[in-house]
Amino acid sequence: MRDFTRDGKWIAINTATVKSWSLEQAVEGCARAGITAMAPWRDIVQACGLARAARLLRAHGMTVTALCRGGMFTAADETGRRAALDDNRRAVDEAAALGAKCLVLVVGGLAPGSKDIAGARRQVRDGLAALLPYARQAGVPLAIEPLHPMVAADRACVNTLAQANDLCEALGDGIGIALDVYHVWWDPDLARQIARAGKRIISYHVGDWLVPTTDLVFDRGMPGDGVIDLRGIREMVEAAGFAGYCDVEIFSAKNWWIRDPAEVLKICIDRHRTCV
Amino acid sequence: MRDFTRDGKWIAINTATVKSWSLEQAVEGCARAGITAMAPWRDIVQACGLARAARLLRAHGMTVTALCRGGMFTAADETGRRAALDDNRRAVDEAAALGAKCLVLVVGGLAPGSKDIAGARRQVRDGLAALLPYARQAGVPLAIEPLHPMVAADRACVNTLAQANDLCEALGDGIGIALDVYHVWWDPDLARQIARAGKRIISYHVGDWLVPTTDLVFDRGMPGDGVIDLRGIREMVEAAGFAGYCDVEIFSAKNWWIRDPAEVLKICIDRHRTCV
Repeated sequence: MRDFTRDGKWIAINTATVKSWSLEQAVEGCARAGITAMAPWRDIVQACGLARAARLLRAHGMTVTALCRGGMFTAADETGRRAALDDNRRAVDEAAALGAKCLVLVVGGLAPGSKDIAGARRQVRDGLAALLPYARQAGVPLAIEPLHPMVAADRACVNTLAQANDLCEALGDGIGIALDVYHVWWDPDLARQIARAGKRIISYHVGDWLVPTTDLVFDRGMPGDGVIDLRGIREMVEAAGFAGYCDVEIFSAKNWWIRDPAEVLKICIDRHRTCV
Repeated sequence: MRDFTRDGKWIAINTATVKSWSLEQAVEGCARAGITAMAPWRDIVQACGLARAARLLRAHGMTVTALCRGGMFTAADETGRRAALDDNRRAVDEAAALGAKCLVLVVGGLAPGSKDIAGARRQVRDGLAALLPYARQAGVPLAIEPLHPMVAADRACVNTLAQANDLCEALGDGIGIALDVYHVWWDPDLARQIARAGKRIISYHVGDWLVPTTDLVFDRGMPGDGVIDLRGIREMVEAAGFAGYCDVEIFSAKNWWIRDPAEVLKICIDRHRTCV
């Protein structure tokens, strides 16, 4: 297991963690803090301008661990699903332009009015299969992110690492997994599925589960503030072959998002050394 | 599959659904509404007095589908776990006195300060094993209730039907499963695990998953108001051998709990016919 206690070599910052910053501010803020890797979200990349964002990241020597995010494959009709596919192709292009190591996919939940979660899961598989040739050609690995079952209805109907493994096995090369400890820490099958995933894990996200948790989406904790056995999970992931960055991704409307992002980065770096 | 559209023969009311009522009020209210089965919680049984509660339920011809709840096996030390076991034995006695068809068990989450969910799960298995001989002797079936992964840390570390099935297989006779659609509807392995459970499912709870859900515990929906395929799940459960009551259990701090419980019962009966 890698020793993180001495430096911040393997920390990456997901821009959602410093949500009040523009991409320009986030790149400069990370660079100032000595952070060399980032995972930007598409909205702030678009606000910056894609070409300019790519130049900015390169100019600061940033490794782009992932672009967040594509997906949202499910829709009530074929028109909606085609629109989603078109948007995902644009996301692949953006990831390629940024030199991102992968495109993270949050796959989508139930279409409005639907109670058919098995059907939603078929739509996801079909959407992934339709996107994959385009992503392969662009040289952009897709990363399926299993999301916590509490957001199965409205965000992602891939809710376990087992499902993501099944999808990868069915779809072949060019597709892997973004594993976020926040979403999977509770899974009784986690150890087995991490071993099964092996080097399919191409993106690794850290955060923490707070007790109590007061919101289903926007109340994640800073690593160390919650109940997740972060070292235990990283040990399993590294034993399975992962040797990349640990992306700190914290949605926190009432705490981290209203603090000074530069202070938040300092704490991320400290926790990366002591808790991740 | 049973036809529920003509009568309310198979509806049962979990007293948490009419939370503002005492046991006396709940028994009388259910009887007035033509409901013949109930699942009371221990706190209101104790407030009523156990012997009096038993007489009251019998006098109104109520089937007691379950007593809610025992469990909470996890604790920071042996003293805490022994206290939990003692309390569970009292719960078994209470269930026996009421003639309850089972004692529902919410197994407990992480002990304070712990990040060891695998350890918590071992404590649960050990606690169940320690309680089981007493329950067998009393003739009270234990019913493990898998709870949604979003409450894994603080309420129950048994979060899938697969885990409950594993526990039942390991522990033998006298222990079954309380299946609440609210907790398991999202599970990609649900169909297979229901078939595997078969007649182990001795208690069946209905409610619905709202979109959006605004609280991790107290924002459940009335059957029909959410996204759960209630008919689809009941079909699977009945195909597996379940032929008992459907307990309506709704925790709803901002909606159903602040309405007139008599009105809530009418809506429960209507939804039982049209949605469950």
